[in-house]
Amino acid sequence: MSEVKKMDEKIPTRVLPGFMELLPAEQIVFDRIKNTIAEVYQRYGFAPLDTPVIERAEVLLAKAGGETEKQIYQFTKGDNELALRFDLTVPLARYVSEHVNDLVFPFRRSHIAKVYRGERSQKGRYREFYQADIDIIGDGSLSLMNDAEIPSVIYDVFSKLNIGAFVIRISNRKLIGGLLESLETGNMSVGVIQTIDKLEKIGQNEVHGILVELGVPDNTIREIFTFTDIKGTPEDVLNALRNLCIENELFQTGIKELEEVTHYLKVLGVPPDCYAIDLTIARGLDYYTGTVYETILREHSELGSICSGGRYDNLAEKYTKRKLPGVGISIGLTRLFSQLKDIGLIELGAATPTKALVVPLVADMAIPLEIATTLREAGIAAEVYFEDVKMKNKLAYANKLGIPFVILVGEDEIASGEFAVKNMETGEQVLLTKADIPAHIKSAIM
Amino acid sequence: MSEVKKMDEKIPTRVLPGFMELLPAEQIVFDRIKNTIAEVYQRYGFAPLDTPVIERAEVLLAKAGGETEKQIYQFTKGDNELALRFDLTVPLARYVSEHVNDLVFPFRRSHIAKVYRGERSQKGRYREFYQADIDIIGDGSLSLMNDAEIPSVIYDVFSKLNIGAFVIRISNRKLIGGLLESLETGNMSVGVIQTIDKLEKIGQNEVHGILVELGVPDNTIREIFTFTDIKGTPEDVLNALRNLCIENELFQTGIKELEEVTHYLKVLGVPPDCYAIDLTIARGLDYYTGTVYETILREHSELGSICSGGRYDNLAEKYTKRKLPGVGISIGLTRLFSQLKDIGLIELGAATPTKALVVPLVADMAIPLEIATTLREAGIAAEVYFEDVKMKNKLAYANKLGIPFVILVGEDEIASGEFAVKNMETGEQVLLTKADIPAHIKSAIM
Repeated sequence: MSEVKKMDEKIPTRVLPGFMELLPAEQIVFDRIKNTIAEVYQRYGFAPLDTPVIERAEVLLAKAGGETEKQIYQFTKGDNELALRFDLTVPLARYVSEHVNDLVFPFRRSHIAKVYRGERSQKGRYREFYQADIDIIGDGSLSLMNDAEIPSVIYDVFSKLNIGAFVIRISNRKLIGGLLESLETGNMSVGVIQTIDKLEKIGQNEVHGILVELGVPDNTIREIFTFTDIKGTPEDVLNALRNLCIENELFQTGIKELEEVTHYLKVLGVPPDCYAIDLTIARGLDYYTGTVYETILREHSELGSICSGGRYDNLAEKYTKRKLPGVGISIGLTRLFSQLKDIGLIELGAATPTKALVVPLVADMAIPLEIATTLREAGIAAEVYFEDVKMKNKLAYANKLGIPFVILVGEDEIASGEFAVKNMETGEQVLLTKADIPAHIKSAIM
Repeated sequence: MSEVKKMDEKIPTRVLPGFMELLPAEQIVFDRIKNTIAEVYQRYGFAPLDTPVIERAEVLLAKAGGETEKQIYQFTKGDNELALRFDLTVPLARYVSEHVNDLVFPFRRSHIAKVYRGERSQKGRYREFYQADIDIIGDGSLSLMNDAEIPSVIYDVFSKLNIGAFVIRISNRKLIGGLLESLETGNMSVGVIQTIDKLEKIGQNEVHGILVELGVPDNTIREIFTFTDIKGTPEDVLNALRNLCIENELFQTGIKELEEVTHYLKVLGVPPDCYAIDLTIARGLDYYTGTVYETILREHSELGSICSGGRYDNLAEKYTKRKLPGVGISIGLTRLFSQLKDIGLIELGAATPTKALVVPLVADMAIPLEIATTLREAGIAAEVYFEDVKMKNKLAYANKLGIPFVILVGEDEIASGEFAVKNMETGEQVLLTKADIPAHIKSAIM
């Protein structure tokens, strides 16, 4: 008896916590977003790349550290210490180092793929998630113009995604770096920058408290807040920065770079309400050395940045002696999708790519198949409903999946050569010959 | 001194053995193949799915076994025993079981993604590889017409991939099953079927030897070879099968199913030289219960099957009590690509999606950026060459990447409003206004 019970026991099929799994209608929207991003990336000349999900552990550990290192999925297979990539930047660094002699620089690559972080499971945090990255890597040097063009890629992506008004926030790490240099904060700088990065999240009072704890002198904190308080149009901000009269080379370079980047944004046609200089963004990582970007949805700034990145001086120092400066951005696609779903910005449509369902009312499938073939040849996704069920259930199949057109094929239709093509949304039904069906459906769905 | 040396040591960047990593020009061809398959799958109404790469180990182990089990990448994270999927069918079984109440049946899904097998490393075997699968899953039952339509999907895929003549080999597991039943081979059947599956690879003599070793009686072996020797057109083979006069229900059902499948292949317009009944194929796995498919390249049968699959009675018995019959196929994309490359069937083109490179001969990037924006808005992938290098090097960049058009923007061009658009292949150069450039390039590349 217990034997029988055991055989009947089924293995749990729930997806692991922290992993996203979508139903078909959701997946179709997700893929549409992913494809839109991929298309924009390609239009700017970024070559699509694909690297292994599994890397040597030492490759990943060289660039990880702190929290990230704890999150890495590591394991042994045979003699190899392996790990799953936790971002797409470290694999890029390895790839460029490995293939440096086969690549043409500046190297523009896009990569849209899954990465893995064994984080503590919590809402909105994923252990497997898509990142959609672009980077431009120079050999030895890289023009600042690349920094200027990146926001126009961001603008194109989010305009096409049509998820509401957004603002690309831009700053330059040389400004805060130069300011702290001029204030002689010395080795506190990293801590100070990471604290400033929290300004929007925790507010000025809390940031003040942390800076005091870090041992930052009162007058220095005042200077920092004078700097982060600067707001206004790009012109206003740039003027205010100049008026600070900070005689530090790094700081002055920061102003010049920011000026050039925002100047060309205008040239590139990014509307003024879609970008802003925001001196509070610093991008926590000490990895960035120049321009930095964040992107927020105007009506949903609580989501935080949905697209971030910046300029870095050296991509791959752990792997190669070549100096490879770069600039890039990353969209956390899985998280973005989940957030958009939560705030009701994901509108679900059909649960299938099928645009036309051929419903046979006869046993011989020859004519139904011919109609489906004609549709497919015309580029219209089509299927034949083969199962032997009641008419009602065949139409229910089309309705549940959201298939927009149904074509009925009965004895009468075959005899007359004209088939009833039903628009499932409007209920409108027309009689058409096989040859006329594709054009009719195409005009409605495209 | 040793400290300095250590700091200079670089981490090895070579990709792990058994993992494929492509250069941009190869990746572009790979992606084109992948996208062609995806498009055909969608045109037949298969909804694209995406499931986690990481599954609970128990989910995968329930369906693995033997060799496969040893190959699974397994590891522990926190309290969880995890594993990387080794195919896309087991995740499908779990997915359908989990979401059975949210899906509409027959459920048609496509899935093109990476799977993992820690195989012994050898040429042509990958540890990470793409599979491109479709399956149609019925709830309780599933019409045989689905089996009939699958080869037309295969035909569409390989016609569009344009990699030479191919043959879809079709058989039905009920035939060999019924034959062995009628010959009362009893529990030797699985071994016998697996042996027959090797006929093409090792020849009749060796198969004979193994069958003798398995203890199959001589007259039974003769009957088996009489069966597997049947060749000819589908009509010939079906007639010969009927003429064997084997009074076994399973066998007779096999004939009827094969007859219907091949009948509808004709209706679907699959040319006669693109398919054949081949009674030697059995698909090793005891998983298949009816129609089975293999696909070979006519000129390169040494590659083995490049697309295989079949009908199964019950997808997910380990996970659910629902009976879920299905039929599907799988293309081992990574292996196929690697093989096509080896035999010279992969023709490399550009190493970038960029169709037009704007080359500024001036410092102000305003006009070059405007031209690039105009091109992108017209759907043409474009980039501006921003780096400050010699003219020769700018053109070398276009040449090395295989960018078909270069647009020169100098003082004279800006003054006259006409820009030199150079076809990099023909060397032809024309002067065009900004507005006329997109149409000129479009007509050449599309």
